[in-house]
Amino acid sequence: MADPNTHVAGIGNAIVDVLVQVDEALLATLGLTKGVMTLIDAGQAESIYERLPAGIECSGGSAANTIAGVAALGGRAAYIGKVRDDQLGQVFRHDIRTAGVAFDTPAAVSGPATARCFVLVTPDAQRTMLTYLGACVELGPDDVSAAVIEDAAVTYLEGYLYDPPEAQRAFERAAQLAHQARRRVALSLSDPFCVDRHRAEFLALIAGHIDILFANEAELCSLYQTDSIDEALRQVRGHVEVAAVTRGALGSVVVTTEATHVVGAEAVTAVVDTTGAGDLYAAGFLFGFTHGLALPTCARLGGIAAGEVISHVGARPAHPLADLARARLGDDFLSACRG
Amino acid sequence: MADPNTHVAGIGNAIVDVLVQVDEALLATLGLTKGVMTLIDAGQAESIYERLPAGIECSGGSAANTIAGVAALGGRAAYIGKVRDDQLGQVFRHDIRTAGVAFDTPAAVSGPATARCFVLVTPDAQRTMLTYLGACVELGPDDVSAAVIEDAAVTYLEGYLYDPPEAQRAFERAAQLAHQARRRVALSLSDPFCVDRHRAEFLALIAGHIDILFANEAELCSLYQTDSIDEALRQVRGHVEVAAVTRGALGSVVVTTEATHVVGAEAVTAVVDTTGAGDLYAAGFLFGFTHGLALPTCARLGGIAAGEVISHVGARPAHPLADLARARLGDDFLSACRG
Repeated sequence: MADPNTHVAGIGNAIVDVLVQVDEALLATLGLTKGVMTLIDAGQAESIYERLPAGIECSGGSAANTIAGVAALGGRAAYIGKVRDDQLGQVFRHDIRTAGVAFDTPAAVSGPATARCFVLVTPDAQRTMLTYLGACVELGPDDVSAAVIEDAAVTYLEGYLYDPPEAQRAFERAAQLAHQARRRVALSLSDPFCVDRHRAEFLALIAGHIDILFANEAELCSLYQTDSIDEALRQVRGHVEVAAVTRGALGSVVVTTEATHVVGAEAVTAVVDTTGAGDLYAAGFLFGFTHGLALPTCARLGGIAAGEVISHVGARPAHPLADLARARLGDDFLSACRG
Repeated sequence: MADPNTHVAGIGNAIVDVLVQVDEALLATLGLTKGVMTLIDAGQAESIYERLPAGIECSGGSAANTIAGVAALGGRAAYIGKVRDDQLGQVFRHDIRTAGVAFDTPAAVSGPATARCFVLVTPDAQRTMLTYLGACVELGPDDVSAAVIEDAAVTYLEGYLYDPPEAQRAFERAAQLAHQARRRVALSLSDPFCVDRHRAEFLALIAGHIDILFANEAELCSLYQTDSIDEALRQVRGHVEVAAVTRGALGSVVVTTEATHVVGAEAVTAVVDTTGAGDLYAAGFLFGFTHGLALPTCARLGGIAAGEVISHVGARPAHPLADLARARLGDDFLSACRG
């Protein structure tokens, strides 16, 4: 098998975000728990939209944000996900392609509309999400292009993909194709309640297929049903080659069989909107990993990318990430780009 | 005729903006003149979109921005404009209604898609616009609801409405209905090149129908084909009851037959994106005017609303305008709200 040409291929729910600034009272009125993602159906999407103030629409989707971040750092990146042939689907396709990502999954020509996620941003910069999966339920194993997966050093899967039923089979096909081609498979746990909904499947997938695991502390604790992050870290060690666990303002911990790296957070001037923080951490980490950087440097690069995305509204980079990385990491980043 | 229940009714091109941060080089590549609005057809919209980086979508439209501003100040406001029954049309309708504006123009069920405007924002905060009129060409006199116009103290028309051909007849019907009901009619000149395209029609409309004229210096000079703003101001005096002429960082000048009021600009911390500055000036001015405030106070209120909208990305208010106005104008604003 030849060396891969793509650094990271992502598979995820292709979603357009509707970003809305709200106060705490609206979350209470809607009965929402801050910080989590709730699935809604088409009827709920309509009735909730009527109760939200004016928003802005921009491309989102957890793995899509990560892949856009890998491309923004200068990596070669590809994406697999399902939109419909409607206006928001065109917006999604335009935005990910102009970010430099190869995206060729055919749009659905019938069925539900392109997925939307209402991202409710409170004054404390926390985000609470309501997702209408729409066309994402049409994603299946036939959409997983063997050529794309076999050409990628890492295939990156978002945990949210476990919500649309057919996507689980797409998930498994991608993992099999990647390992047959001797590539690595990464998974992000996405959300503690998503983990709760699909714990058994996640544990089986991790045991059978996952080389690199991304999670925050709440998600990892949910996976192993423990209140203790130390216990969760003890359990994950050895189950995967690398686990990268984010800790918000405390930075991250990277665990391998042999070592534990505790890495502090990068300096951030102002936290405006935390949407996309985990997605961009994974982007920076995977860029570093696929360019042969040391794990603590991968974690720093994750922190730099996450720090950029939380400094503004929206879940994709708004400033040149490669410039930021060069300024913060100097030769470490430059040598990766040359390599 | 009873007193009007609505302060301002707006008629305009119902447009969703695609806001894109660009550098000067891209304007040059696309052959665009900075600061102006260029009309594009569906084919151009597609080919230009492919060359733009990822953007954010949000509701726009010149008069719609103004009307949303009137509502944000606490005024009663209505809007007439044409979208299609597509996703961006739903976004436009949602956003203007949740801003508190009555909007009941039926969506087109066939024909072109909801209008889009590519707003290219350069690092100097200037905006350059490319508009695909789409469904706006379907707006005609039948869409001008007599009930809406007769109930509004001021009917506000945007100059851009002269671009879609049928809208001119909608324009004239609205002006006639308003004057028959003894209401006032306001017009914004929109853009120097728009004035250039329709100068004869504008001059005839102003002479026959317009009570309140909004323009910036370039637009007023274009209207009277002069390089001298003093000459343009001399010509406009007496042609309309009130002319409010904006001068960017210099503030504005309000001209009536009897008086000239020169009003300085409001303090602005940082100019991020000038999109919507003129639209929001008109919003503040008309809120003041329809609440019986003195003309210099109307101009200050215009400056406050414009100052807010240029302090962030997007053409509609992002912060509570009424709170800003209360903080800056104190009793003048409070008495208007009570009146």
